[in-house]
Amino acid sequence: MYEIGVVYRNIRRADRDVAGRLAALGSATVHEAMGRTGLMKPYMRPIYAGAQASGTAVTVLLQPGDNWMLHVAAEQVQPGDIVVAAVTADCTDGYFGDLLATSFKARGAQGLVIDAGVRDVRVLTEMRFPVWSKAVCAKGTVKATLGSVNVPVVCAGALVTPGDVIVADDDGVVVVPAAMAAKALEAASAREASEGEKRARLAAGTLGLDMYNMREPLLKAGLTYID
Amino acid sequence: MYEIGVVYRNIRRADRDVAGRLAALGSATVHEAMGRTGLMKPYMRPIYAGAQASGTAVTVLLQPGDNWMLHVAAEQVQPGDIVVAAVTADCTDGYFGDLLATSFKARGAQGLVIDAGVRDVRVLTEMRFPVWSKAVCAKGTVKATLGSVNVPVVCAGALVTPGDVIVADDDGVVVVPAAMAAKALEAASAREASEGEKRARLAAGTLGLDMYNMREPLLKAGLTYID
Amino acid sequence: MYEIGVVYRNIRRADRDVAGRLAALGSATVHEAMGRTGLMKPYMRPIYAGAQASGTAVTVLLQPGDNWMLHVAAEQVQPGDIVVAAVTADCTDGYFGDLLATSFKARGAQGLVIDAGVRDVRVLTEMRFPVWSKAVCAKGTVKATLGSVNVPVVCAGALVTPGDVIVADDDGVVVVPAAMAAKALEAASAREASEGEKRARLAAGTLGLDMYNMREPLLKAGLTYID
Amino acid sequence: MYEIGVVYRNIRRADRDVAGRLAALGSATVHEAMGRTGLMKPYMRPIYAGAQASGTAVTVLLQPGDNWMLHVAAEQVQPGDIVVAAVTADCTDGYFGDLLATSFKARGAQGLVIDAGVRDVRVLTEMRFPVWSKAVCAKGTVKATLGSVNVPVVCAGALVTPGDVIVADDDGVVVVPAAMAAKALEAASAREASEGEKRARLAAGTLGLDMYNMREPLLKAGLTYID
Amino acid sequence: MYEIGVVYRNIRRADRDVAGRLAALGSATVHEAMGRTGLMKPYMRPIYAGAQASGTAVTVLLQPGDNWMLHVAAEQVQPGDIVVAAVTADCTDGYFGDLLATSFKARGAQGLVIDAGVRDVRVLTEMRFPVWSKAVCAKGTVKATLGSVNVPVVCAGALVTPGDVIVADDDGVVVVPAAMAAKALEAASAREASEGEKRARLAAGTLGLDMYNMREPLLKAGLTYID
Amino acid sequence: MYEIGVVYRNIRRADRDVAGRLAALGSATVHEAMGRTGLMKPYMRPIYAGAQASGTAVTVLLQPGDNWMLHVAAEQVQPGDIVVAAVTADCTDGYFGDLLATSFKARGAQGLVIDAGVRDVRVLTEMRFPVWSKAVCAKGTVKATLGSVNVPVVCAGALVTPGDVIVADDDGVVVVPAAMAAKALEAASAREASEGEKRARLAAGTLGLDMYNMREPLLKAGLTYID
Repeated sequence: MYEIGVVYRNIRRADRDVAGRLAALGSATVHEAMGRTGLMKPYMRPIYAGAQASGTAVTVLLQPGDNWMLHVAAEQVQPGDIVVAAVTADCTDGYFGDLLATSFKARGAQGLVIDAGVRDVRVLTEMRFPVWSKAVCAKGTVKATLGSVNVPVVCAGALVTPGDVIVADDDGVVVVPAAMAAKALEAASAREASEGEKRARLAAGTLGLDMYNMREPLLKAGLTYID
Repeated sequence: MYEIGVVYRNIRRADRDVAGRLAALGSATVHEAMGRTGLMKPYMRPIYAGAQASGTAVTVLLQPGDNWMLHVAAEQVQPGDIVVAAVTADCTDGYFGDLLATSFKARGAQGLVIDAGVRDVRVLTEMRFPVWSKAVCAKGTVKATLGSVNVPVVCAGALVTPGDVIVADDDGVVVVPAAMAAKALEAASAREASEGEKRARLAAGTLGLDMYNMREPLLKAGLTYID
Repeated sequence: MYEIGVVYRNIRRADRDVAGRLAALGSATVHEAMGRTGLMKPYMRPIYAGAQASGTAVTVLLQPGDNWMLHVAAEQVQPGDIVVAAVTADCTDGYFGDLLATSFKARGAQGLVIDAGVRDVRVLTEMRFPVWSKAVCAKGTVKATLGSVNVPVVCAGALVTPGDVIVADDDGVVVVPAAMAAKALEAASAREASEGEKRARLAAGTLGLDMYNMREPLLKAGLTYID
Repeated sequence: MYEIGVVYRNIRRADRDVAGRLAALGSATVHEAMGRTGLMKPYMRPIYAGAQASGTAVTVLLQPGDNWMLHVAAEQVQPGDIVVAAVTADCTDGYFGDLLATSFKARGAQGLVIDAGVRDVRVLTEMRFPVWSKAVCAKGTVKATLGSVNVPVVCAGALVTPGDVIVADDDGVVVVPAAMAAKALEAASAREASEGEKRARLAAGTLGLDMYNMREPLLKAGLTYID
Repeated sequence: MYEIGVVYRNIRRADRDVAGRLAALGSATVHEAMGRTGLMKPYMRPIYAGAQASGTAVTVLLQPGDNWMLHVAAEQVQPGDIVVAAVTADCTDGYFGDLLATSFKARGAQGLVIDAGVRDVRVLTEMRFPVWSKAVCAKGTVKATLGSVNVPVVCAGALVTPGDVIVADDDGVVVVPAAMAAKALEAASAREASEGEKRARLAAGTLGLDMYNMREPLLKAGLTYID
Repeated sequence: MYEIGVVYRNIRRADRDVAGRLAALGSATVHEAMGRTGLMKPYMRPIYAGAQASGTAVTVLLQPGDNWMLHVAAEQVQPGDIVVAAVTADCTDGYFGDLLATSFKARGAQGLVIDAGVRDVRVLTEMRFPVWSKAVCAKGTVKATLGSVNVPVVCAGALVTPGDVIVADDDGVVVVPAAMAAKALEAASAREASEGEKRARLAAGTLGLDMYNMREPLLKAGLTYID
């Protein structure tokens, strides 16, 4: 049950440094390090290839076809934040374009993750303002009905609490709860460290079957080779 | 970030009586009374017309193609509960059929809400065991990977905390946080009470335009009638 | 380019008697008689099996998540009309429920065709108020932004001009322009007349291959039988 | 690579008696008995609740918006067959209605499985002619381009070879290769036999956790109970 | 009710100069200037990033899996036109490839908007022939059934009358009725003019809340700030 | 009925040289040369624009959320192969990333076609390892349940037998059965040869109407020109 019509001004942001270091590891590695949880649905796609962003979440709850709260949210953005916007219903309208992006950027926002549509994507791409959305759509919105800012929201199937770390890239968007960020960074870093060596062995021709010791469990599970 | 591999045995259930009285008001009225929040996405449909259920949520987090945790959840069900199952990925497999329904029913479960597929729907219908799902599918599942029971889950776009009240009928599924249940009941009851009189006036030919005093705001908004 | 914020009070309705007789022929036959045109997309489904309705269209243009104009439309309904509602964006919200249905019915509406969601479907079914929609959803709507009544609209891929005949049943919804209604009725009736005899011959074992003289064109097209 | 423009008149049909007995076991049980394979995608739904059919497959390959080959197929139907129709592209047109159903029924067809749309569903329901389709749509088709009859087809994600056993019900459609039918029947019957006893135990309150000896593997996998 | 089997040779085209100037303003600005109407659904996407086109519409009505009418349409193209193609049913076949593009280009076509699939997208991209479609698909089509050229069509949810102005870019496709083109240009230009100054103010840190005077209406609507 | 838990080590691969020459002709031309058959559904898209690959198919059958068999498949890859992976249920998980790609590449694989999701797409793009998939998703998978390698699979609606030729590019993925490869190459080459001349004539302004002699059949079909 969302609170409607409220703006929380003081949120507890995750450590900025931790957020930055998580970003470098990428959404797939961070998600693995979190026990394969925290991921938004794969329909959330970047508006340009190679987009990468991370930050602490300022959340927005929007009404269908109404982007009023994005303007309210702009004031709450601090440098290093990333805006995460949910809508109370499925909607593909273009809630966000180059004017709002200019404002968000001026406030220090690292990007936008929105479970709806955006527009002006050519200009956004030229600005290198990274956006993950479920649609691109020229359709504009009204400013008539209240939503909220900095309440917990469900965005593309993931729960986002204000201040959580968001890591977004070509593979998708992952949410790291503020309280777990340090631990997730540690696990993700360990995972990453081990990948370099694995990559070298695989490139040299070693099979995953041998590197991961899979032959015996496969045999036990009943796998049969037929010549 | 979900906890994986845990079962919480003690959850704080909302008041059973409140849950029952919310059910009688229906998902649409309850959702309105909550400020139009708390609703699962409309792809969640009952397996038979007229299905109705309510209860306190026992939550389950499932892995794709794997229904192991539904068996674990059965043990946690108390009379008056309704099971709410999420999956860590999009999946339409048939996680639940008549055997599990028999077991759930024996434990006192009021129904199942699952963001995946179910099967044996003819038998489930004969049993009048109500299920809301996103698919019907004969495909079975394995029992190989752990999920969790009674952790907060996002099911069909709604956050469900164990013990929350679930109200489900032909119009969809609404989640009422345990702490808000009494207040939601009050608001929904008030709303319902006013509907009977309105219905009578509308049936007698009164227009909503007049009953809700809409003519002036419409005029102010600029509505123009053309003969 | 829709006109926004206008209500046309005087529309030229197709002949009521023709509308009624078209209805008896069914959407598939009428659509065939119109050269296989005029059909809404198949995602438009009746809320109960066996729903049937026809009438002259009162059209409504709605904004996303906002049902204000349905109240405005109610006043424009005359006995024998059917309301056809489009939305300026994709939306599955529940725009219409039992109160509006009570009002529409009191005005003489034959049903509703809406390219969005509806709710209270159990009550609507008990009332036998037929509705075709793209979704069932408990989510309510606001009353904040103007649309229009009785402007031409595109509903589920079909152009509907106020006063057109609408024929809706289990197979879908077909739009017959007012000016073509008489001609469409004639063609559909002729088609229907010929179907009874065909059905009898097919039931007796005659093959369509022979009844429709298909063997020669199939041979010419190169069809080869292999034993 | 489909053969286009051919009709195979002689196909090797699976044993009719085996087909009938498989039907009684239902699609879910048969699919389980086949190692969880052979199932069509869950978007294939019966046009009325409770539809059940089985038979030996007469296959049809159709072109988009063109139902010519269904008439060709009618001649190849023998009593006990079920027609399985694929289209060379995604299409929701209404390829099949009451006239074709009358003809198919006269030939002894048990039903139709079609990866496209059908129409006249009210009449088909009254006739109790069972159909599984991906859409209901009033739109008609032309008769202009050749497809084939009794070639192997992929229908809704499943490979169907002419003569295979098809088992279809509320849970979906499963394909049993003719050569495997006897073995599948044996496995499915064994599975069914064990279900009755299980159902009784579960109804009496035994947990699946105990009945299936899951507690130890769950513990080994690391499941933790928290009070 | 579409006319089938006709080609209108003389259509009233919107002013070419107006069309060109609308294009420069972009689909989002033009759509806003038209009261947020006239937009095709957002599933229509350009085949390459940065595609931009505008022109006067030559419309085509196609049958499923059949591109015959695109060849008929080519003859009706005049320099400055853009071809807008609808299909009488949902279809993703590849109706259009590099040969047709070569022909369209030779006739002076500015691009193609098609509510279906296209192919040869690598070559089309190299040719910089802009196409908006709902799918990319290698599947070819037949030439067997008549449609029409230069009749009004519904394409991706928007009504297009021959001669209308089409403005298409990364954000989508907007239709400007010929009779409204001059007025739309005026409104869009005014809108555009005001955006430059707004952008500068937002970049300098002014909030939209202040620039658009939103604080008072938000307060009136009940927005609450919580510290 | 898939075989589960088997790996066929010896498959009959189509001629490598033929595979390479088919690739140069492109998926659309090859598909046309095969009578417009053999194509996967258009939801299969390359992860980067301009991706091209061809080879002989090593097939993999995967379980939902489980990529174990991709490791087993790696060992069966020979230089010139392309891996084709199907899943027993709809799944968008990220089954494949840069480590597996490194291993596949070391084995000589030409690319991957997978009816599921992949991840690490930025790195895969930098490696120029071409992948066609139905989703991009950071979500990882388990290694718990057996599938099979080198059994016939249905991938995105097309039947793929181990050793078949796969041709994949921006327009989609086409499957050429090994036994038909030589004949398909001949037909596709002939088709390609005739296209160059056609393109030149169309570029010079000749209409398809004349080049393909369509005027008479259009007239016969009843096409009417209206001035």
